[in-house]
Amino acid sequence: MTLKYYHAEPVANSLKSMIPLKEKGLAFESVYVDLHKFEQHSDWFVAINPEGQVPVLDHDGAIITHTTVINEYVEDAFPDTPPLRPADPVGKARMRYWNKFVDEHVMNFVSMHGWHRMVGIIARNIESGEFLKLVERIPLHEQREKWKTARSGFSEADLANATRKIEVAVDKVEDQLGKTPWLAGDMYTLADINFYAHCGMMVERMFPEMEIAKRAPRLVEWRDRVTARPGVQAALEMPDHTAPGLRTWTGHAR
Amino acid sequence: MTLKYYHAEPVANSLKSMIPLKEKGLAFESVYVDLHKFEQHSDWFVAINPEGQVPVLDHDGAIITHTTVINEYVEDAFPDTPPLRPADPVGKARMRYWNKFVDEHVMNFVSMHGWHRMVGIIARNIESGEFLKLVERIPLHEQREKWKTARSGFSEADLANATRKIEVAVDKVEDQLGKTPWLAGDMYTLADINFYAHCGMMVERMFPEMEIAKRAPRLVEWRDRVTARPGVQAALEMPDHTAPGLRTWTGHAR
Repeated sequence: MTLKYYHAEPVANSLKSMIPLKEKGLAFESVYVDLHKFEQHSDWFVAINPEGQVPVLDHDGAIITHTTVINEYVEDAFPDTPPLRPADPVGKARMRYWNKFVDEHVMNFVSMHGWHRMVGIIARNIESGEFLKLVERIPLHEQREKWKTARSGFSEADLANATRKIEVAVDKVEDQLGKTPWLAGDMYTLADINFYAHCGMMVERMFPEMEIAKRAPRLVEWRDRVTARPGVQAALEMPDHTAPGLRTWTGHAR
Repeated sequence: MTLKYYHAEPVANSLKSMIPLKEKGLAFESVYVDLHKFEQHSDWFVAINPEGQVPVLDHDGAIITHTTVINEYVEDAFPDTPPLRPADPVGKARMRYWNKFVDEHVMNFVSMHGWHRMVGIIARNIESGEFLKLVERIPLHEQREKWKTARSGFSEADLANATRKIEVAVDKVEDQLGKTPWLAGDMYTLADINFYAHCGMMVERMFPEMEIAKRAPRLVEWRDRVTARPGVQAALEMPDHTAPGLRTWTGHAR
């Protein structure tokens, strides 16, 4: 059995599917894809994932993409490892409700602020002819547009809407954690990992004006519980090749 | 065991979770929610689903929302019925890849054209004070905005982008059907039902300028195979209370 994981820095999508591998103690080959060099759009990588996006899981030649799909796959393919998905149908549905919420209403909005602060700087440091050539290689229309917008700057209206979406998410999670210890109930699941990797781990640092400790104390306590897990620690310790001054998501840059 | 399904007309989301119930021969109580009277935002319904959206599945008191989540739930809760999800992990991942694609890159874009043509007419027929009161009752911010935009009219740029997204989806499905008989492989699955309910069943009729029969002949043949299934027929025969002149999705209005 060979398991290969193509990924970037330990944050957002790359972290989200790294955590289950570590939690389950699965041996895998780590293949680092350098986003700073646009390696995800290079020929060798697009031959593996035609959408040109990390992460990718290669399990004995079966290529699995999209983190929510990867994480359910790992549950299905390795049923003898510690489960991160409830055994009962209602529990599974609760977990999938939250996964859908994070995928559709959280991820892209935190991401927009991250791109605005970090990727925009990277994009503006590239000479414009070179930048156009890099953009042309990007397989997905949405990603091409995102890179162009990151360079020219996201609009204030879009950034304000993204902030509003993040506030809604924070309040929704805080409310849920008043009812159950984890997002989908009594058990730590892929839903917690999803919200943690895309928002929970960095929301307090990235948005000090939200006063997260005051607004969402249960979220902070939950975040610390997730961070303390050995599987999460092991995933967070994977290499970070981003320049320290640009570590908007993973470090202390703003 | 009691199974209750709250739904509107047999199209889009309401159809998408009706088909599995019919395919599996599950006995359920049908509760019609009248969207023409904004019943989905009424107190009695919001008490069941705080998000104010159909459909909802109530299984012995467990409330399941969001059609992709409902459909996986029905697979998990009734394992002895004919499966609509592959048994092997890779097959499941292929199905979920397509479900995610339809949920995030297809559904809202066909929906925008449907709203533009049909819901816009309904919204403009309501006196503006009354309309504002109706909108205030809508729980989700995104839905409030969608109703307001439907009344004032979607922008040409948004409609053109939606058309582009639908064309990308049609070409992607056509390409996949050149490789496998169904979207996720050799088996008819929830992925086929998802694309059918949100796009496949009506795309040729709603967008004649796309020349679907010429552009995507395999999609047309696949659509006819899905339509011919007795479970799909039974779901399509559920009552349609939309005025015939407004049946943009379910009938022949444009």
